[in-house]
Amino acid sequence: MSLEKISSNKVFEGELNKYKFKSSVLGDLDTQFNLFIPVNAKRGPVPVLVYLSGLTCTEDNAAQKGSFLGPAAKEGIAILFPDTSPRGAGVEGETDSWDFGVGAGFYVDATNPKYAKHYNMLTHVTVELPKVITEAGLPIDFSRQSIFGHSMGGHGALTIYLNSIRKGTKQYRSCSAFAPITNPTNCPWGQKAFSGYLQGGLEEAKEQYDATELISKLGGKSVHILVDYGTGDNFYQQGQLLPENFLKAARDSGYDEVQVRVRSQDGYDHSYYFMSTFGADHIHFHANFLKA
Amino acid sequence: MSLEKISSNKVFEGELNKYKFKSSVLGDLDTQFNLFIPVNAKRGPVPVLVYLSGLTCTEDNAAQKGSFLGPAAKEGIAILFPDTSPRGAGVEGETDSWDFGVGAGFYVDATNPKYAKHYNMLTHVTVELPKVITEAGLPIDFSRQSIFGHSMGGHGALTIYLNSIRKGTKQYRSCSAFAPITNPTNCPWGQKAFSGYLQGGLEEAKEQYDATELISKLGGKSVHILVDYGTGDNFYQQGQLLPENFLKAARDSGYDEVQVRVRSQDGYDHSYYFMSTFGADHIHFHANFLKA
Repeated sequence: MSLEKISSNKVFEGELNKYKFKSSVLGDLDTQFNLFIPVNAKRGPVPVLVYLSGLTCTEDNAAQKGSFLGPAAKEGIAILFPDTSPRGAGVEGETDSWDFGVGAGFYVDATNPKYAKHYNMLTHVTVELPKVITEAGLPIDFSRQSIFGHSMGGHGALTIYLNSIRKGTKQYRSCSAFAPITNPTNCPWGQKAFSGYLQGGLEEAKEQYDATELISKLGGKSVHILVDYGTGDNFYQQGQLLPENFLKAARDSGYDEVQVRVRSQDGYDHSYYFMSTFGADHIHFHANFLKA
Repeated sequence: MSLEKISSNKVFEGELNKYKFKSSVLGDLDTQFNLFIPVNAKRGPVPVLVYLSGLTCTEDNAAQKGSFLGPAAKEGIAILFPDTSPRGAGVEGETDSWDFGVGAGFYVDATNPKYAKHYNMLTHVTVELPKVITEAGLPIDFSRQSIFGHSMGGHGALTIYLNSIRKGTKQYRSCSAFAPITNPTNCPWGQKAFSGYLQGGLEEAKEQYDATELISKLGGKSVHILVDYGTGDNFYQQGQLLPENFLKAARDSGYDEVQVRVRSQDGYDHSYYFMSTFGADHIHFHANFLKA
């Protein structure tokens, strides 16, 4: 599991490094990730924000287009950008769709035997990457970790965070999302993904992979969540994101605006332009908890 | 010459619009550009910063990766992103190289008959785009205009600016560049481009397309120039950029650090990560003059 550094770019006085390693969790396939390390990491390990990308993306898109690195450098926080799926598994049909298979791992551990060897992005993100990065001696302090993401990655961030709250692991201090898929068992993207990856289909998904279901089951445990979506987002308009469902479930469970803030942003769409607009806000939100 | 709006993304409260039109200057070919219009343009025309991109780029790269839009929104300044060459001219060999022809117009008006009908990015940027945009009634005030760019586009920005100073047109108030090609008649990229586009080759280029030559001939006329380059830039190390030549010519002509500031940035490379780091600096530099 040794890391190979593929490239390094100096940016905002820190560095953005791309690494490669053979992932046992993804069935011994090579996987890549980007890691932004701010300059203050030279004085000791820094907190880290995990960013989960959306459908079709790799570890590169948000590093290049998200406008996150400047605000993260200012706050002295690292950002980890994983890939969105295993690559090269060779599972039949895995490259046929843009919303399932390669580039579309949905941050689950697959239970359908067809996908179970390789499609384990949940454990890859939550266990393997922190372990590999720590063992490599990189100056990242995973005891100060938060998580955010976009679209499918917003789904990943919310479900990973809510499960950690439910289980009391305290692995993540806060969670935010741009245009997340918040109720995937009720939208076409989620239904397709879960029917494919999970032996138990939607019923299995409701247990741990649906943010709207999960927030209803927390029994009032403290959370720190920020969500932004745009009213001009075509996927929102098509009912893929369903943030109103998530908001209603949160309010019904007694969470107020301090704990679960869902902002409707007038006229913004699903693009990186939308994310770049509110990126600094999200970094600042997480810094409150990561640097507390 | 009517403009067709191809797409629009809300960003930082303003909008990034992509337009298409048939360019007579480029030999009646369709061309595209992006225009960031800040929200304050609703109250009246705003100043504009023209951004010229580098080799292989289109109107999209810097709009997506430059981190310019946030700072420009804050200052209330529009940014115009032209393409880097005509597209679809069908000139024999124009797509054979990444550093000549398509994606590599070098912001000249070609005099070699083979290229003269289409390769006229100089007039496209300085005359045609302001005219088309103004005639379309867009809220851009081209009497408050500055120019910047990257690499080949830094060459374009510097030469266009210095020629406007030399001729006394006052078309641009200030100029900046990231990792510009500053002495192209002395580097392989420039020598290849000028030998192809210009009937008079390098001698013709020295007259109007070489920033180091041009700054020597201004006779002390006032200029406002900011240049950043990275010491980790492989093209700098290979002698394609030659910022020391430009700096020496500027100092020899009596320009001090207030008028011509050339900053060597330790360890930065040629990428958009480098640009995004100093983008806000450049926007702020131009705002001093555009809003004066």
